[in-house]
Amino acid sequence: MSARLLDGTAVATAIRDELRPRIAAFTARAGRPPGLGIVLVGDDPASQVYVRNKIKSGREVGFSVDLQTLPASATLDDVLGEVRRLNASDRHDGILVQSPLPPALGDAAERIVFDTIDPAKDVDGFSPVNVGYLVQKRARLMACTPAGIIELLDRAGLAISGRHAVVIGRSDIVGKPMALLLLHRDATVTVCHSRTRDLPGVAAQADILVAAIGRAGFVTRAFVKPGATVIDVGMNRVDDAATAARLFTPGSPRRATFEKTGSVLVGDVHPEVAEVAGALTPVPGGVGPLTIAMLMRNTLRAAEDRLAP
Amino acid sequence: MSARLLDGTAVATAIRDELRPRIAAFTARAGRPPGLGIVLVGDDPASQVYVRNKIKSGREVGFSVDLQTLPASATLDDVLGEVRRLNASDRHDGILVQSPLPPALGDAAERIVFDTIDPAKDVDGFSPVNVGYLVQKRARLMACTPAGIIELLDRAGLAISGRHAVVIGRSDIVGKPMALLLLHRDATVTVCHSRTRDLPGVAAQADILVAAIGRAGFVTRAFVKPGATVIDVGMNRVDDAATAARLFTPGSPRRATFEKTGSVLVGDVHPEVAEVAGALTPVPGGVGPLTIAMLMRNTLRAAEDRLAP
Repeated sequence: MSARLLDGTAVATAIRDELRPRIAAFTARAGRPPGLGIVLVGDDPASQVYVRNKIKSGREVGFSVDLQTLPASATLDDVLGEVRRLNASDRHDGILVQSPLPPALGDAAERIVFDTIDPAKDVDGFSPVNVGYLVQKRARLMACTPAGIIELLDRAGLAISGRHAVVIGRSDIVGKPMALLLLHRDATVTVCHSRTRDLPGVAAQADILVAAIGRAGFVTRAFVKPGATVIDVGMNRVDDAATAARLFTPGSPRRATFEKTGSVLVGDVHPEVAEVAGALTPVPGGVGPLTIAMLMRNTLRAAEDRLAP
Repeated sequence: MSARLLDGTAVATAIRDELRPRIAAFTARAGRPPGLGIVLVGDDPASQVYVRNKIKSGREVGFSVDLQTLPASATLDDVLGEVRRLNASDRHDGILVQSPLPPALGDAAERIVFDTIDPAKDVDGFSPVNVGYLVQKRARLMACTPAGIIELLDRAGLAISGRHAVVIGRSDIVGKPMALLLLHRDATVTVCHSRTRDLPGVAAQADILVAAIGRAGFVTRAFVKPGATVIDVGMNRVDDAATAARLFTPGSPRRATFEKTGSVLVGDVHPEVAEVAGALTPVPGGVGPLTIAMLMRNTLRAAEDRLAP
């Protein structure tokens, strides 16, 4: 094991600490703390954990956070009604509808809901106008995970300019905005995906490799140039013994966790990559905490902009 | 010379021919032809040529096109006033403010003007919400040059899916939207620029190479994998003898043109690339006519959407 571990939790704590004086100043000026409204529909267990973390983190940093839960049987109109109420609310600066919505609402539901959120309160950075601002290098509210990764690289002293960055995955939430942010920081950027030929060979050109595909341990040693920085955006639950055996050597702590509890969380990057990478984000404790810290920063930014546009 | 020449003029003609029945149907339903309003500020000679071509092409295809010219001394308020008048006009479906605006208007003027154009009439695809839709793979009005290049590749029978596309240049108008459109068509996409290390080496990985940098003959043989498809977005006027000597062999038709007239138009791709590329767009007669054809398509699309949203 040679890779330097990039501690996302520590960076997230530093970012939140930097926000505190701004939050205090806002609260003094506005006569109220920044307000974040969260809408959670249905009872997906992972979503419940994510939302709980966001509420805790928001309150801890000094925001007013409230949660509106809707049952899995809620209609699209119910969800849109909540969004419109938060759009109209003067004391809510940020609005977050936890993804995914229940499948019963249909494929288009999420897009319709995100399109309904007031772009000035769109702290996830999902609305088209905020995405357009990101492309045009004038983002105010931008996708949290890619923004957090840039912060992590900067604070770890890892240069971006002139480096070759390879992003595996092309989602609207991570892959595409990540590529654009790296490009704006003067990286040469390659975006790969399931249709890429010789994916390991392309990935192995990277000085900075970002894995955002949602497949446990997909990025093996063959994908990584020795010394490269590897950012693992994945968060996959492994609960079958064959996968656990492929990923974790007998006697390792995570193999032990799997054998004790029957499941273990793992990123998109195979643990063996720690032996070749120069720097690596752990899972958990890497990108995840940064995403929440950036959500806090976006919410404060939205609040400040609403107070003094 | 081995490269197949990709005839942009012929493809542009085919696209315009396909638009005609839709234009006739629109005109019959709406009781008026699709309307395009063009604003030209100042007296830049190249802009005057571009605008003249757009007017001619629009009228030829059956649009109502009108031009509002403003003197180079016009204020930003004058320009915005024209844009607002066109936004409010019921018979204008598309609005185009010719770029660049006179430098005297300041660096921010263009952005302010483009932000003022009603996104539903933004036939250049420059407004942030239209850029966001492009990223989210639901563009209605998208940047004309990249859209035209996709049409050219498709109609030439050149596959995109699974190919490695390298885009040199990262402008909002060409480089970034080109990369996104190629990505959406399942290419592996690399974006290079002035800070890229070993630019020829990276470019030479491309199956599809798009040059959009604005430097005469910058892409030489060393940038091109034998057999690659090379798309030349550049349009540069060469008027010094040293550059002409670097680009054109003695006795070649373009060298003769230069010697006769003292200047010649050349793309970003060096003529010697025709000896290694598999397919190549000429300059002029490659990408340029496609850009105008896509402007026509965008204008019709905007008109149709306004009639039946």
